[in-house]
Amino acid sequence: MTQTHGTGRLLRAPEHFLDADGIRRHQEESRAGRRGFIRAAFAAAAGAAAAGTQAQPQPADGEAAILQLPPHTRGLGQPVVTDGYGLPSKFERNVQRRQSPGLTQTRQASVSFAPLQSLFGIVTPSGLHFERHHQGWWDIDPSQHRFMVNGLVKTPKVFTMDALMRLPSVSRFHFIECGANTGMEWGNVAVPTCQYTHGMLSCSEFTGVPLVTLLEMAGADLRRGKFILAEGADGSSMTRTIPMSLVTSGQVLVAYGQNGEMLRPENGYPLRLVVPGVQGVSWVKYLRRVEVGDQPWAAKDEALHYVDLMPDGTHRQYTSIQECKSVITTPSGGQVLLDKGFYNISGLAWSGRGKVRRVDVSVDGGRNWREARLQSPVMDKCLTRFSLDWVWDGKPALLQSRAVDETGHVQPSYRQLRAVRGTRSIYHNNAIQSWLVQESGEVGNVQVA
Amino acid sequence: MTQTHGTGRLLRAPEHFLDADGIRRHQEESRAGRRGFIRAAFAAAAGAAAAGTQAQPQPADGEAAILQLPPHTRGLGQPVVTDGYGLPSKFERNVQRRQSPGLTQTRQASVSFAPLQSLFGIVTPSGLHFERHHQGWWDIDPSQHRFMVNGLVKTPKVFTMDALMRLPSVSRFHFIECGANTGMEWGNVAVPTCQYTHGMLSCSEFTGVPLVTLLEMAGADLRRGKFILAEGADGSSMTRTIPMSLVTSGQVLVAYGQNGEMLRPENGYPLRLVVPGVQGVSWVKYLRRVEVGDQPWAAKDEALHYVDLMPDGTHRQYTSIQECKSVITTPSGGQVLLDKGFYNISGLAWSGRGKVRRVDVSVDGGRNWREARLQSPVMDKCLTRFSLDWVWDGKPALLQSRAVDETGHVQPSYRQLRAVRGTRSIYHNNAIQSWLVQESGEVGNVQVA
Repeated sequence: MTQTHGTGRLLRAPEHFLDADGIRRHQEESRAGRRGFIRAAFAAAAGAAAAGTQAQPQPADGEAAILQLPPHTRGLGQPVVTDGYGLPSKFERNVQRRQSPGLTQTRQASVSFAPLQSLFGIVTPSGLHFERHHQGWWDIDPSQHRFMVNGLVKTPKVFTMDALMRLPSVSRFHFIECGANTGMEWGNVAVPTCQYTHGMLSCSEFTGVPLVTLLEMAGADLRRGKFILAEGADGSSMTRTIPMSLVTSGQVLVAYGQNGEMLRPENGYPLRLVVPGVQGVSWVKYLRRVEVGDQPWAAKDEALHYVDLMPDGTHRQYTSIQECKSVITTPSGGQVLLDKGFYNISGLAWSGRGKVRRVDVSVDGGRNWREARLQSPVMDKCLTRFSLDWVWDGKPALLQSRAVDETGHVQPSYRQLRAVRGTRSIYHNNAIQSWLVQESGEVGNVQVA
Repeated sequence: MTQTHGTGRLLRAPEHFLDADGIRRHQEESRAGRRGFIRAAFAAAAGAAAAGTQAQPQPADGEAAILQLPPHTRGLGQPVVTDGYGLPSKFERNVQRRQSPGLTQTRQASVSFAPLQSLFGIVTPSGLHFERHHQGWWDIDPSQHRFMVNGLVKTPKVFTMDALMRLPSVSRFHFIECGANTGMEWGNVAVPTCQYTHGMLSCSEFTGVPLVTLLEMAGADLRRGKFILAEGADGSSMTRTIPMSLVTSGQVLVAYGQNGEMLRPENGYPLRLVVPGVQGVSWVKYLRRVEVGDQPWAAKDEALHYVDLMPDGTHRQYTSIQECKSVITTPSGGQVLLDKGFYNISGLAWSGRGKVRRVDVSVDGGRNWREARLQSPVMDKCLTRFSLDWVWDGKPALLQSRAVDETGHVQPSYRQLRAVRGTRSIYHNNAIQSWLVQESGEVGNVQVA
């Protein structure tokens, strides 16, 4: 691991709080016996606590040192945080969104990946939500922002934010995944960490008005209107076609809330479309207009981009559902197992077609599979956290997870996926991810057919 | 509303994005007719967009002005956020935790309240999570932190953070409420906003190891061990007794994760106890030790503080479950209804004894009740968002919500609660909250028997 690759000096769970020296020391001490290690750890802890404070009685040995109290036990701490907005611990500064060096030409039309290897549960903190901008992000004044509904409607409508926020709203947990997530792996470019393989993925509680409510207010013609076009207010001219069936089911939201507060500017403040199960590009940010129409618009970002190059040389268009997929986030690429013994294998599963039904995990490259525990509640088109007990015997191990959704879709192997899709795609790679644990404890990204 | 009271210049949903002048103007224009208002709003929006940019062709009238494109439609935006941690929009700077002026003598032993009136759904963003410190907060180095299990155990155990994070973990959504939440209202001190009446309440997805796992590893004596003592590492010497039955049920967690990332320093980084349904003081922060014992410890924060003064002059101790409760957060104290018409009444309900079964809402001070919609999934010992459609006729209205939990506990009126508890308590006020909407649209806190 180098700094370039982004996990940096502080590695993450299960070796979260050790640096490279700490890992080496731990491994040596673990060979010398666990009791010795714990004794040494206490001595180090007490020493660190004493350092930088006024002179203390010197402990006779390492065991007595733990009786010295650290500053936080003796002093007065920081006052309540009422100026500004609370932030993570300084010891978490390495947990950040990261740009993949060289992936894009500019930082405005770019991607930052969420640090999945450092996250727990299913909620992505909004400060770490992945980004995909086509022309940079904006902090738009909500009092100036307007949202219009037009096209095949009786009365075109324009809403202020205040008007939208008076209407009945719903709050739902959903994942959002960029269609290009895991795109590098099509070309066998095994990027080092799951932040880069799968980090264009996040999950939030979204709050907003069902779009169908707004269409009804405008008197939309739902007989002729088979599609909508969603349009953003930023300079990328982002427009996307969405089938009306997703709208009339009540699933599509005109959202202003994310994880309890207003959307973040990078995620479309003050308004974005939420299209559960569908690739992120359709969740149009800075949403300013929805048009009702009777056929797809063939906009640039659906006719030319976000299409799948098939083995016969044709392009598949409008393949926007994110199929069933999973990834082990711990242990994962770039992490180091400190020694043999117990580990909690943990990861994320999701499907754009509904709920995750089951996740199987293999530690021997797919020869044997065990069913993982799923954390409840398992929600529709939402991340599901899975976990499995594992005792590592110190030999090389090949970790894989395979999700099945409620429609019966089984996450494919690379061999299965390539048999249909070939090798030249960018988008919609939902193949099984493999992490190789070496005898040294180092975990790396490998591609297994 | 004055700045002192904390909602400040920018008021919040449903009048979120208007300042005091904006509200007055809206109300005048709304009397002059809605069409005129929308026309004027567009002119203002276009004017603002044009201001401060290079000279533009002047529009002939207000209607044409909307054709002028704002800067975010014409220019290149900000690059992806990869240095540091994402933050809310600058237009949200008024959404903050607030201290109640004069409530405490120091800012270290103090409270900051979460801005419930500005939040959506059930997740509280960690940057806005309420705080209650007994001796200030600390940012403790996790590599130095240790957690000990001792008392009635076969083998006392000491865990590093790395050791804890290798163990099987669970992630669950739970509310946390300070036992003193809504405490001011016992004394008929009607504080102005729901941030101050109910803001010692937050809800997060917590991740950690069930405490029962750690007790089993230490060989705890579960026949004699009827209680645990939880102890924090900070200078407040916080210790709390918790019945073993909550631990063996698997509910109590030794938690390191909150809303997907590590706990925030203000909330106990790197380790806190999660005791679902129980008042916040028992969720010991900076958790360093759990002792197994055969009787309650009568620690200072359970024998002297966090006790209920009863009408007969005795104190009730160990009443730590947060009973069934609810509050309407929109419309709520300090907000202003702009004009007659449709509003989405929205609020939060919760119970320390299980799931919320039902919430009823009254707009006439309890004479008539209608059943509110509950947002799914309704989770155990978790906030539940409720909402109800309401058309305001412009006359005074008295808004109330009344929750019922799955045990059948019905949230009491003040008359019912005081008949049992008297008037001199601080803690455990779960009475029905009333908000009075005046003809002017202003909403205020009133206490109704």
